[in-house]
Amino acid sequence: MSLVIVGSMAFDTIETPFAKRERVIGGACVYASLAASNFDRPHIVGVVGDDFTGAHMNILKDHKIDTDGVKKSPGKSFFWAGKYNQDMKTRETITTELNVFEKFEPELPEKYRDIPYLFLANIDPALQMKVLNSMRKLKFTICDTMDLWINIKKAGLTEVFKRVDCVVLNDEEIRLFTGKDNVLHGAKEIQKLGPKYVIIKKGEHGACLSGQGMYFSLPSFPVENVVDPTGAGDSFAGAFIGYIAKSGKTDPATMKKAIAYGNTVASFTVEDFSIDGLLKIGPKDIDNRMAEIKKMVTF
Amino acid sequence: MSLVIVGSMAFDTIETPFAKRERVIGGACVYASLAASNFDRPHIVGVVGDDFTGAHMNILKDHKIDTDGVKKSPGKSFFWAGKYNQDMKTRETITTELNVFEKFEPELPEKYRDIPYLFLANIDPALQMKVLNSMRKLKFTICDTMDLWINIKKAGLTEVFKRVDCVVLNDEEIRLFTGKDNVLHGAKEIQKLGPKYVIIKKGEHGACLSGQGMYFSLPSFPVENVVDPTGAGDSFAGAFIGYIAKSGKTDPATMKKAIAYGNTVASFTVEDFSIDGLLKIGPKDIDNRMAEIKKMVTF
Repeated sequence: MSLVIVGSMAFDTIETPFAKRERVIGGACVYASLAASNFDRPHIVGVVGDDFTGAHMNILKDHKIDTDGVKKSPGKSFFWAGKYNQDMKTRETITTELNVFEKFEPELPEKYRDIPYLFLANIDPALQMKVLNSMRKLKFTICDTMDLWINIKKAGLTEVFKRVDCVVLNDEEIRLFTGKDNVLHGAKEIQKLGPKYVIIKKGEHGACLSGQGMYFSLPSFPVENVVDPTGAGDSFAGAFIGYIAKSGKTDPATMKKAIAYGNTVASFTVEDFSIDGLLKIGPKDIDNRMAEIKKMVTF
Repeated sequence: MSLVIVGSMAFDTIETPFAKRERVIGGACVYASLAASNFDRPHIVGVVGDDFTGAHMNILKDHKIDTDGVKKSPGKSFFWAGKYNQDMKTRETITTELNVFEKFEPELPEKYRDIPYLFLANIDPALQMKVLNSMRKLKFTICDTMDLWINIKKAGLTEVFKRVDCVVLNDEEIRLFTGKDNVLHGAKEIQKLGPKYVIIKKGEHGACLSGQGMYFSLPSFPVENVVDPTGAGDSFAGAFIGYIAKSGKTDPATMKKAIAYGNTVASFTVEDFSIDGLLKIGPKDIDNRMAEIKKMVTF
């Protein structure tokens, strides 16, 4: 059925206690679209600078990702540098350079506008709303955000939440947005705004799906060697919406399986730097790991 | 098959952001034995003071717990006062009075010594070792501990770990004991000492079982209203060993089901103050919640 993904395309400099990579490809839209491409054809919307070369774009095109919605602007691409702590979970931002992303205005090619599935990755809620208003035949939209927008643009973000089917947040974001200490209460509070589902991302502890009278919880696959956690959440969301788009259904059984695919693909992402973990995998790897996750929770 | 549980018996003053209870019954041995009593007959070993009256003891006896191994000493019982923070997870200790527990020397009634299942709750590793040496026909022993003993009695604790079948620790304790940031690596390090299994307790995120080439992970039941988290870990361990004792088996399928029973019973514990959540439940409640947990992870 195909899907649209809107979000950042970037270069990241990533340092962990074990290694460092300079200016590797990153950004929510990049991770999510590569993850989704395992299931259905993503059509992406973003902006890049001169440093995002044809070779970079070809990585996406080789995965049958439609890049017609990517604008190339003069200047440098969005750049983020971060350093992970010894726990390989918490991190410090060293540098954020918005560059061409500062004036990002998502412009959807006409052919994108009738596509039924949409992932609004973390961008300014005003831009998320603009995309929502451009789409004509949406069947299922998921939406991510970050603490920054909750803090400075809560009203706009709330309007976006009212328009989407599923919100994907981590537990801290749910607490920040709702003021509820218990994330289950927080998730229900968000559902009251409109979204049928709330996904609670819990990093190494997995993910939960709350909504439509259902509560589903799945632990993360136990990755023995976490190399780079960057992009795990975006890979999760990309695989989730990719599987939903492929199946064309949003019933509880499909939603649960989509969460499991999200967990599965995210577990590959963290096994290598940047998108390298995503580039290595095929359908067989995904199916095998899904089977392992299923076995891991079966009693 | 019946089981032995050795640990603290106490009174706790518990304060949460929502309520306070003064000098309610507590202690690892109390929580664990009540939890285990849902499955098999616990025989407990502990020490109490004059304040632990016949009425208190009858709560245990009413649950068919053998209290012949409980010594009554002149003085007061172990007392702990703590205050939970707004998150209902982290807490501060206000007071710890060891009282009669300071000179606790576990003495096992002769009839206990041929019992095949044993839970060594958190006490001085030297006392845990003394109990191990008193038992003649052990089939399966689990062992808990705390950061204090890892810090000040690591050598003695290591000797205990070498003698038991399963170690139950939270992720911070695993990191502290092994120095490994990745708890999976930490768990394997502990297994190298001897224990066939390591259980990683993760509180609201559930529990994992690692060992014998198996990795099992189960999220916690989503408790909507956590009233008092005290005793959750001990209830978990009590139900776990209780189910194993009842089934008389330690194959992977039994171990997984035991983890699920541990999660189930612990979820009832946190729904009320002190042992009140445990006193309310019967086999039907446990079976119903087990079914809910199973459904929660099935895809």
